[in-house]
Amino acid sequence: MIKRISAQQAARIDKELMGTCGFSIDQLMELAGQAVAHALYRVHPPSKGSKVLVLVGPGNNGGDGLVASRHLSLMGYEPKVYCPKPTSGALFDGLRTQLEVFRVPYVDTKDLPSAFSTADIIVDALFGFSFKPPVRESFVPVMDLLSSTSKPTVAVDIPSSWDVDNGPGDSKFNPSVLVSLTAPKKCADSFKGRHFIGGRFITPAFAQKYDFDVPPYEGTQQVFEELN
Amino acid sequence: MIKRISAQQAARIDKELMGTCGFSIDQLMELAGQAVAHALYRVHPPSKGSKVLVLVGPGNNGGDGLVASRHLSLMGYEPKVYCPKPTSGALFDGLRTQLEVFRVPYVDTKDLPSAFSTADIIVDALFGFSFKPPVRESFVPVMDLLSSTSKPTVAVDIPSSWDVDNGPGDSKFNPSVLVSLTAPKKCADSFKGRHFIGGRFITPAFAQKYDFDVPPYEGTQQVFEELN
Repeated sequence: MIKRISAQQAARIDKELMGTCGFSIDQLMELAGQAVAHALYRVHPPSKGSKVLVLVGPGNNGGDGLVASRHLSLMGYEPKVYCPKPTSGALFDGLRTQLEVFRVPYVDTKDLPSAFSTADIIVDALFGFSFKPPVRESFVPVMDLLSSTSKPTVAVDIPSSWDVDNGPGDSKFNPSVLVSLTAPKKCADSFKGRHFIGGRFITPAFAQKYDFDVPPYEGTQQVFEELN
Repeated sequence: MIKRISAQQAARIDKELMGTCGFSIDQLMELAGQAVAHALYRVHPPSKGSKVLVLVGPGNNGGDGLVASRHLSLMGYEPKVYCPKPTSGALFDGLRTQLEVFRVPYVDTKDLPSAFSTADIIVDALFGFSFKPPVRESFVPVMDLLSSTSKPTVAVDIPSSWDVDNGPGDSKFNPSVLVSLTAPKKCADSFKGRHFIGGRFITPAFAQKYDFDVPPYEGTQQVFEELN
């Protein structure tokens, strides 16, 4: 089994990647979002239903969701984005401009229940490895819809509302698919669905230094599926 | 056949991608370099020989080569980089720092002939769509080696030393593989080897506006091979 890392380790690794390793956030987010889109393609190709609802949170996890939406659009999906608390700044402004060019529509809060009903599959890019429960009030309605939907759900890096180190706790959200980025977090041990790892930008030496594993990616694949 | 574009069109499209489309150069270069690495994998997987010499020029074509080197390293190749005229600035400094972390070695000019001899395959990322002949004096030695090598060669976007609109002219360089980025340039009509197109970040509406084609990429593939 691929080693799990703590929230603290994840934050340290992220800092190193953009510090001593010289990566820009644009590069890492592009590869992370692409990996999410590729994992979704593996479990649910567009022939099984192309309507994807992408739930985008205020942090970098949300940014991964915006990038994934663009790659999904390029692969024949019809993504819609729900972004309850848009983040400003050059990075997010750019990602949103790209989606406008791709004619990816945004969903209003009042239309969210119907967007859940009409979607074939849902991407949870609400909260990432820096999340700590409880869910803030403004995100409770979307978390309630996400926890009660019968549609397949793909969680980006962390199932939103879970404690990164300790797992679901009181959360009723059980995603069908988890795409861990860089390395699985400890809460992945409580996850029961299909588990992919993406974020193919790590050398074995770097992984060893921070005590995690580089999964055995095949060929040009950007995701690796961990089979039980 | 996929439509060809002029050097002037290529410059305009690039400007639009980073202007009205909201892309950052980091994003576009990451996807372009990744596509180059994936095309190389298709024609020459590491099992056929993992030693890749990457020739890196001073512009964005060279940047694509630096990104490709990193992805090649991740896929099991042993790239070496020859960079006769390193470019400064945050983007290129970052790309070089990444390669240092990946322990990708640089080749000195004096060792270039032996690097050609020991390589299994060579990537030409010297000049891109803004190149105009003749080749400047400092690049003549590497172009001479590239034109006379018996090893397979992969040209990034343009076979270096060719006129972007008019083809090889007096150039003796005939790459085995061409990876056109975004869209093939007019000189691709004079090219006889295996031709891939990469740079999967274009919507059909944008391509139509600028009178070029989005190739029919399959599934999650980042390159499309144009078969004669």
